Amino acid sequence: MIVAMKSDATESEIEGVCEHVRALGYRPHQIKGEERTVVAVVGKAQGVDHTSEFINYPGVENVMAIQQPFKLVSRQVKSSKTIVRIGDIAIGGDELIVMAGPCSVESREQILETARAVKQSGARILRGGAFKPRTSPYDFQGLEQEGLKLLAEARRETGLPIITEVMSAEDVEMIAEYADILQVGARNMQNFTLLKKLGRAGRPVLLKRGMSSTIKEFLMSAEYIVAHGNPDVILCERGIRTFETATRNTLDLAVVPVLNELTHLPVVIDPSHATGKRSLVAPLAKAAAAIGADGLIVEVHPTPDQALSDGAQSLDLPMFEAMMQQVRRYAAIEGRYVA
Amino acid sequence: MIVAMKSDATESEIEGVCEHVRALGYRPHQIKGEERTVVAVVGKAQGVDHTSEFINYPGVENVMAIQQPFKLVSRQVKSSKTIVRIGDIAIGGDELIVMAGPCSVESREQILETARAVKQSGARILRGGAFKPRTSPYDFQGLEQEGLKLLAEARRETGLPIITEVMSAEDVEMIAEYADILQVGARNMQNFTLLKKLGRAGRPVLLKRGMSSTIKEFLMSAEYIVAHGNPDVILCERGIRTFETATRNTLDLAVVPVLNELTHLPVVIDPSHATGKRSLVAPLAKAAAAIGADGLIVEVHPTPDQALSDGAQSLDLPMFEAMMQQVRRYAAIEGRYVA
Amino acid sequence: MIVAMKSDATESEIEGVCEHVRALGYRPHQIKGEERTVVAVVGKAQGVDHTSEFINYPGVENVMAIQQPFKLVSRQVKSSKTIVRIGDIAIGGDELIVMAGPCSVESREQILETARAVKQSGARILRGGAFKPRTSPYDFQGLEQEGLKLLAEARRETGLPIITEVMSAEDVEMIAEYADILQVGARNMQNFTLLKKLGRAGRPVLLKRGMSSTIKEFLMSAEYIVAHGNPDVILCERGIRTFETATRNTLDLAVVPVLNELTHLPVVIDPSHATGKRSLVAPLAKAAAAIGADGLIVEVHPTPDQALSDGAQSLDLPMFEAMMQQVRRYAAIEGRYVA
Amino acid sequence: MIVAMKSDATESEIEGVCEHVRALGYRPHQIKGEERTVVAVVGKAQGVDHTSEFINYPGVENVMAIQQPFKLVSRQVKSSKTIVRIGDIAIGGDELIVMAGPCSVESREQILETARAVKQSGARILRGGAFKPRTSPYDFQGLEQEGLKLLAEARRETGLPIITEVMSAEDVEMIAEYADILQVGARNMQNFTLLKKLGRAGRPVLLKRGMSSTIKEFLMSAEYIVAHGNPDVILCERGIRTFETATRNTLDLAVVPVLNELTHLPVVIDPSHATGKRSLVAPLAKAAAAIGADGLIVEVHPTPDQALSDGAQSLDLPMFEAMMQQVRRYAAIEGRYVA
Repeated sequence: MIVAMKSDATESEIEGVCEHVRALGYRPHQIKGEERTVVAVVGKAQGVDHTSEFINYPGVENVMAIQQPFKLVSRQVKSSKTIVRIGDIAIGGDELIVMAGPCSVESREQILETARAVKQSGARILRGGAFKPRTSPYDFQGLEQEGLKLLAEARRETGLPIITEVMSAEDVEMIAEYADILQVGARNMQNFTLLKKLGRAGRPVLLKRGMSSTIKEFLMSAEYIVAHGNPDVILCERGIRTFETATRNTLDLAVVPVLNELTHLPVVIDPSHATGKRSLVAPLAKAAAAIGADGLIVEVHPTPDQALSDGAQSLDLPMFEAMMQQVRRYAAIEGRYVA
Repeated sequence: MIVAMKSDATESEIEGVCEHVRALGYRPHQIKGEERTVVAVVGKAQGVDHTSEFINYPGVENVMAIQQPFKLVSRQVKSSKTIVRIGDIAIGGDELIVMAGPCSVESREQILETARAVKQSGARILRGGAFKPRTSPYDFQGLEQEGLKLLAEARRETGLPIITEVMSAEDVEMIAEYADILQVGARNMQNFTLLKKLGRAGRPVLLKRGMSSTIKEFLMSAEYIVAHGNPDVILCERGIRTFETATRNTLDLAVVPVLNELTHLPVVIDPSHATGKRSLVAPLAKAAAAIGADGLIVEVHPTPDQALSDGAQSLDLPMFEAMMQQVRRYAAIEGRYVA
Repeated sequence: MIVAMKSDATESEIEGVCEHVRALGYRPHQIKGEERTVVAVVGKAQGVDHTSEFINYPGVENVMAIQQPFKLVSRQVKSSKTIVRIGDIAIGGDELIVMAGPCSVESREQILETARAVKQSGARILRGGAFKPRTSPYDFQGLEQEGLKLLAEARRETGLPIITEVMSAEDVEMIAEYADILQVGARNMQNFTLLKKLGRAGRPVLLKRGMSSTIKEFLMSAEYIVAHGNPDVILCERGIRTFETATRNTLDLAVVPVLNELTHLPVVIDPSHATGKRSLVAPLAKAAAAIGADGLIVEVHPTPDQALSDGAQSLDLPMFEAMMQQVRRYAAIEGRYVA
Repeated sequence: MIVAMKSDATESEIEGVCEHVRALGYRPHQIKGEERTVVAVVGKAQGVDHTSEFINYPGVENVMAIQQPFKLVSRQVKSSKTIVRIGDIAIGGDELIVMAGPCSVESREQILETARAVKQSGARILRGGAFKPRTSPYDFQGLEQEGLKLLAEARRETGLPIITEVMSAEDVEMIAEYADILQVGARNMQNFTLLKKLGRAGRPVLLKRGMSSTIKEFLMSAEYIVAHGNPDVILCERGIRTFETATRNTLDLAVVPVLNELTHLPVVIDPSHATGKRSLVAPLAKAAAAIGADGLIVEVHPTPDQALSDGAQSLDLPMFEAMMQQVRRYAAIEGRYVA
């Protein structure tokens, strides 16, 4: 941490800062510049962010953290990529893993038909929402436990592991009985009670980036899950909120290489929520493959125009098949394969 | 709802849209313009958003909702302002209500000293966090139930009702035994499981706007609470996330008149989280009073530089007293008073 | 400047950084921490930003500037507030200066009627656009020089000095013959050719903040004008672009105290462009007065519904009169007056 | 245009709106719904946006435009893709065109060495700034006309056409004597005086998207150039401003398919300014190729660490060669080629 004093800071103000540094168990190191004094804080990091304690100290102009606040998820702590395994599937390895399925589980036929088709096209994991976070209390809220049972049936028939969303700490245990991967939605990225519970869920977690979350906050939320005992976290970029209204969100594809520098966790892209528009899903899926994403999570529905949620961004089955053929070719260039 | 067809849409595409409109129980009304046909959807609103169903229909260019999606919280449904009452305190009436206290309850002396002082200065409600949503798992997470007991003790001594944050649906009942108002933090604005539970909590709820939430989404979250049985919702603006980094967030003060046009719920401003910087709290509190906020929620700490959380934005006791004197004068201009 | 080395940086990488520091004429100062080495760059600032030169150096993790990049506009260089004088009007002093008038000059009667009325209500400066930056090439582009002549006539009749926009370096001299204050619109905040020319215009400049400009960039643009010879710069906040769509922009009122800490230049608020909606202008004008703005610039039109531009946000004459009465009372609280 | 009346609008308010519609030369078409009346405005579009005229009319709740405001650049007006030709180079055709070179022209050797190398690697156009828009007045502002001469010399030697930035309407003619393509920077996207002048420049224009510009505004700026006589406009996405700070901007790659739906103009991606970081340029260039960009514009410098501007994001010559090899393979998948 670096504490920059104001150019007119007094000696006693500088000493005040140094004393507080010592009180916290660090060593202050003064650097006298031409225009101001800077106090560098030296010592073994204790995992606590002290920057805000100094910002209002008399004579202080600015405080800058040097250390990244995350540890367990950092590449510096663990340089080899984490591979999250579900049976014989390895997320973070040479295979680009595609997860596909409807936004919501709606009926037995709907989920079975989709599961068979996406498997046929090369998807390795079946997605489907049973508990749905909906902006309006009047919209379809999901089939809940009944939906989980239908997902489990689709897994039995197709062999595809299933990923589904968990919205609340209360539901973690129950949903973990059915699901192979627990998904945290963008709106819950900083639901810390939920994150702590997921640390003890015994299932891999796919964590979506919040709509206005920085990459640092995203990694801190992953750190919560890992610090509470669960190393199997998959990061998912699904678009951030900007002023642009032509797409529902702005997909921040640069996160793939940025995250790969900062963390060892695998990174998956969701082109469906990122755009909200069916015709944009395949183009962004190709770009995601080209930039090195470890996987994709895509909404697919047999009859999107009749979907109870997110139909506008769902691919139908032939569109998904076409998308997969394209993604396969892009993945191949980087020595990756798609089933 | 208005469905604008593409300029080259065929008759059969137009008819396809009209059929789907009828299937949903509405009447299609075609308007043939010079360059395109527009289909207006007429009929009694059913509280479900169908816009996304139409956006990918063949021949459709654009779909626009006309109806606001919220109902119970709308001024159109209830034109008189809602007054939320806690004992003899009325939020939404002629008194500008100030809620003050530390970010976190840290100790018995800290909360008691603060409670006495803020009461003396005119605060009507004591705030204090016992369950703390912290970005880092390594930061202080709050005293939890012990903190609630200290808040209750401060209430017994000072008579000030207490407001405290609830982070998870699981905790609602327990916290409602202690608190007079339940606070939902910005990160939980779309924690729908929590919102539903708060509909049955039997306590007023202060709902903070999410960091990147539109006003419409904010009101939809309030709608969740009201639709699940709890009419006593207080809206709180606490700054939104923008590209600007000089302040922690950007306080969107225009929400006060905008919300007053759209909803009957009272609106409170949080100048502490909005800026993250002590010296900016009083200026924004004055502006909030001038623009007609129904209340303020302000972080106050006897020794901010030793606070375990958010010290940088906490006022000390004399600063709070000074702020109150100023706010009182601004409130008076509009015929409002501060205790 | 602080250069933080990676935790695994080699000695020769650290030495490479130090050598480049010396080559630039500064002294490197190494601080060996527990986990990494930090190189502080010491020496007299030369007004050039070198941070980007270091960020890709081998072994470098992060580079942080300590010095603010602006000088002439900084409070550290000149602690007393700048007062911009136009005749007997002082912007930045005890009087809160209101500038009012139509978005565009449209006709002789329109500008004269408006000028008389806003003067009567207490405006001290007449605004009116002759060269209009319009998003669409098909929209009304302003009366150009004819508009300037009408403004000059309104000044002769009412005695009000005039402010009008200059869109291009080519037009500066010509417009400076008519106008008392030259306005730079948000879209031109970083039109550096224009800024340089305004440094030699011999007229005060009102510089609007760009729609997505940080406060630092805003001050750097002011620095351009001052560095090229013109000390009379008035800063104007007019709303920034965010995800919110209920208002045209989000007015960032915190800039008033933030700018007052950083710079000596006066700060004016434009509540018309900030919201785009007539009913929100007076509420935000009151808030601006309460937070200590040095002035307001407000769009007023005798018949807003027939305005050729920005009618939706223009006040009519009685609304402006009502607004002024309110603003006057708020200004008075802080010992300020409005004519 | 659709004018939605409030649910309690009176008959005379509805009639007032209809009268104004007629006065503008359109036909009002009333639709009486269950809860409100909607007035559809029918008639031949006149290219003027009237929405803001209606928003404050008594009884009006909301006004929505149906027509896109741009015409000449629209796919509806011209469905075949525009190919911008410079000699034998065709931008918008089957070849993915790469433009490369230094941020600033700094010296004869620097630009000649770069030109030779990028040509060797497959670049088809040489970029280089002579007039530089710099945030700080104290930073290097470019070699100006001397830089243009050096660019012309590099063209003579290598045969590469040159693209360079024009910052002001005054400079258009002079720069057009040297340059093959005139570049408009993000900060000047809404410098309408410049755009008009470029309409008569007789040279193709590469228009960069503003940092916070919507796609609609971006196309309106292109419309300015085309409407003033110049059909050869190339659109360039270079990242937009968001809350994220890990990258300089957020590259919005979805614009490629979105623009391809809306306009016939070619679309080029700038991965250098989008990220501000060298290591991210090649990954985003690959993604841009995968999503179907018509070209790339990339900063390349023989010794980036000594660059006078933007060194942090410049590739050195071997990095550029490596990037080109990768881009070539991605382009090939879609049947495109790179020289």
